[in-house]
Amino acid sequence: MLEDKKPQLTPVSALGEFGLIKHLTEQFGLANETTEVGVGDDGAVINPAGKRIIISTDTLAEGVHFNLGYVPLKHLGYKAVIVNLSDIAAMNATPTQILVSVAASNRFPVEAFEEIYAGIALACRRYNVDLVGGDTTSSQAGLVLNITAIGLADEADITKRSGAKPNDLLVVSGDLGGAYMGLQILEREHAVYLANPQMQPVMEGYDYVLERQLKPEARTDIKKLLTELEVQPTSMIDISDGLASEILHLADQSKVGFHLYEEKIPLDPQTIATADELNFNPVTAALNGGEDYELLFTITPSDYEKIRNHPDFTVIGHATESPISYMVARGSNELIKLNAQGWDALLNKPEEE
Amino acid sequence: MLEDKKPQLTPVSALGEFGLIKHLTEQFGLANETTEVGVGDDGAVINPAGKRIIISTDTLAEGVHFNLGYVPLKHLGYKAVIVNLSDIAAMNATPTQILVSVAASNRFPVEAFEEIYAGIALACRRYNVDLVGGDTTSSQAGLVLNITAIGLADEADITKRSGAKPNDLLVVSGDLGGAYMGLQILEREHAVYLANPQMQPVMEGYDYVLERQLKPEARTDIKKLLTELEVQPTSMIDISDGLASEILHLADQSKVGFHLYEEKIPLDPQTIATADELNFNPVTAALNGGEDYELLFTITPSDYEKIRNHPDFTVIGHATESPISYMVARGSNELIKLNAQGWDALLNKPEEE
Repeated sequence: MLEDKKPQLTPVSALGEFGLIKHLTEQFGLANETTEVGVGDDGAVINPAGKRIIISTDTLAEGVHFNLGYVPLKHLGYKAVIVNLSDIAAMNATPTQILVSVAASNRFPVEAFEEIYAGIALACRRYNVDLVGGDTTSSQAGLVLNITAIGLADEADITKRSGAKPNDLLVVSGDLGGAYMGLQILEREHAVYLANPQMQPVMEGYDYVLERQLKPEARTDIKKLLTELEVQPTSMIDISDGLASEILHLADQSKVGFHLYEEKIPLDPQTIATADELNFNPVTAALNGGEDYELLFTITPSDYEKIRNHPDFTVIGHATESPISYMVARGSNELIKLNAQGWDALLNKPEEE
Repeated sequence: MLEDKKPQLTPVSALGEFGLIKHLTEQFGLANETTEVGVGDDGAVINPAGKRIIISTDTLAEGVHFNLGYVPLKHLGYKAVIVNLSDIAAMNATPTQILVSVAASNRFPVEAFEEIYAGIALACRRYNVDLVGGDTTSSQAGLVLNITAIGLADEADITKRSGAKPNDLLVVSGDLGGAYMGLQILEREHAVYLANPQMQPVMEGYDYVLERQLKPEARTDIKKLLTELEVQPTSMIDISDGLASEILHLADQSKVGFHLYEEKIPLDPQTIATADELNFNPVTAALNGGEDYELLFTITPSDYEKIRNHPDFTVIGHATESPISYMVARGSNELIKLNAQGWDALLNKPEEE
């Protein structure tokens, strides 16, 4: 998509690796007082100021996690940061720094790197995190982005996947399934475009689900909300692979089962409308679609009153003694065994396990 | 190199991403008491115990940083860790944890990942670092390894590139140029093999330079040595791109120049013999070859007596007021301006700057 469109594109070789990294990172300031040394030395130095460090890393690969046919590079850079900040938020911690590594084939000019880093810079500003390291390198083919995120938390606040107890309530932030329906619209319009490049893509009326897919946000606000509500979650995970897969992770590591109530799963009206139009079940999008980057967590039953009317949270089920997790079907109350059919980056198709 | 050699190779799809990561990481224990949560949650949790955190990341890409025609996957995994631990050592810090991300095309079976992780595990054991996170994903082509290393240090011990003062002495650990000469032997023998696969590669007599290239070590021992000698380095960097390039980094960030004495550059006899055989100047290998992963640092002149007879250290020059750095030629004492012709992963040829 980037070759030969503009005659003034700059090959990376014109700057070299050191020059490119300097060019890309000089727009970044340091906003966190915990960042003592940023980009430019052998390592970054962070002052944890008595807190625990949380660290997480994630890779996005072209042709596996994204299609540059319809994902703008700036959005890609933004989303790559969000995916990692979401992991820090899922430990009930506050993200503070990131490191970014980009491997790209020589079809990517300097301007492509600039677009990616513009998205990264936007995410850094919005989430108040500092870019403190990373590198750029060439690759044999395609684009691979790796981001490592660092966060800080007081020891007592850290929330693992393993703390849920039977009868704990299962809570989710925001709504689910939108990112997956946005992906379906992008793929449909991209197929139309490939068949006939004169056709204008139809994006009107899909703004919410497209934004959920192309420009997701990390729920770094939840930690503050829960602190204000005086709720200490007992376990927590972010929804990257789909609700079903994440529930099974909590179940597995907490050694409990869950009952998930189908009718409680929060769905945006546009997610439902888009799914209806595509003859798709929006509950399936929520269960198996992934990439919503909402937080899924458990609370003790005694905290129910604190969150029951909060617009950001929905109680969708509870933990059980049984090791098996079920969805309670809408209407019939039939128990359907939950399977992890989440999206698997290595299989590139729904995983069966 | 891996296709169809053994009929029993296992496609990654047989395990899936979660299954593969679990399979690969279950051999890893946790050895550091600072590691509170390792692999298996949204993020790892590290207790810095009052120290500063040092963090660094590096990517190795097939066809750019390594050629699988002659680099065994186990060595590659080991070296990928070493490269990052070396960065932590270069901040005068102690590495404690790593995160590993592997992107590989589907020509790599499970057994290839196992080999890479066997090398990673060996490095973890030898350097007492814990694997605490990472991921595996597929890629469009080739193999890309990204490793993030975390280390800890007391604030007072951290040594940046920027602390050198005029008249400080320039010191290097170990010897230089060996890794580059090892690469030349590997490339020569690989070319012979490609021309005639019946030919046995000639590796005898090159054991030291081959090991420097294929299985380098990180000088994490230097911090302890310097503490014992009661020497606080004023600036420090590791030698990944070649001595000349690293000297210029110290000069640039410390706002000094350097005089480097050609005759003082430590060279192993096998490095010299191999260079002679290939009609190559071993000093050029030291200056521009890179990948030696020794440490280059400065000390105040008053510390000279403490290290002058230490077998691990060689004083090779000193810092000057001038912003320009020179090599003082052997014999003639001619001043030759130092240029960064270090290896550049994006240009994939010596960089001119």
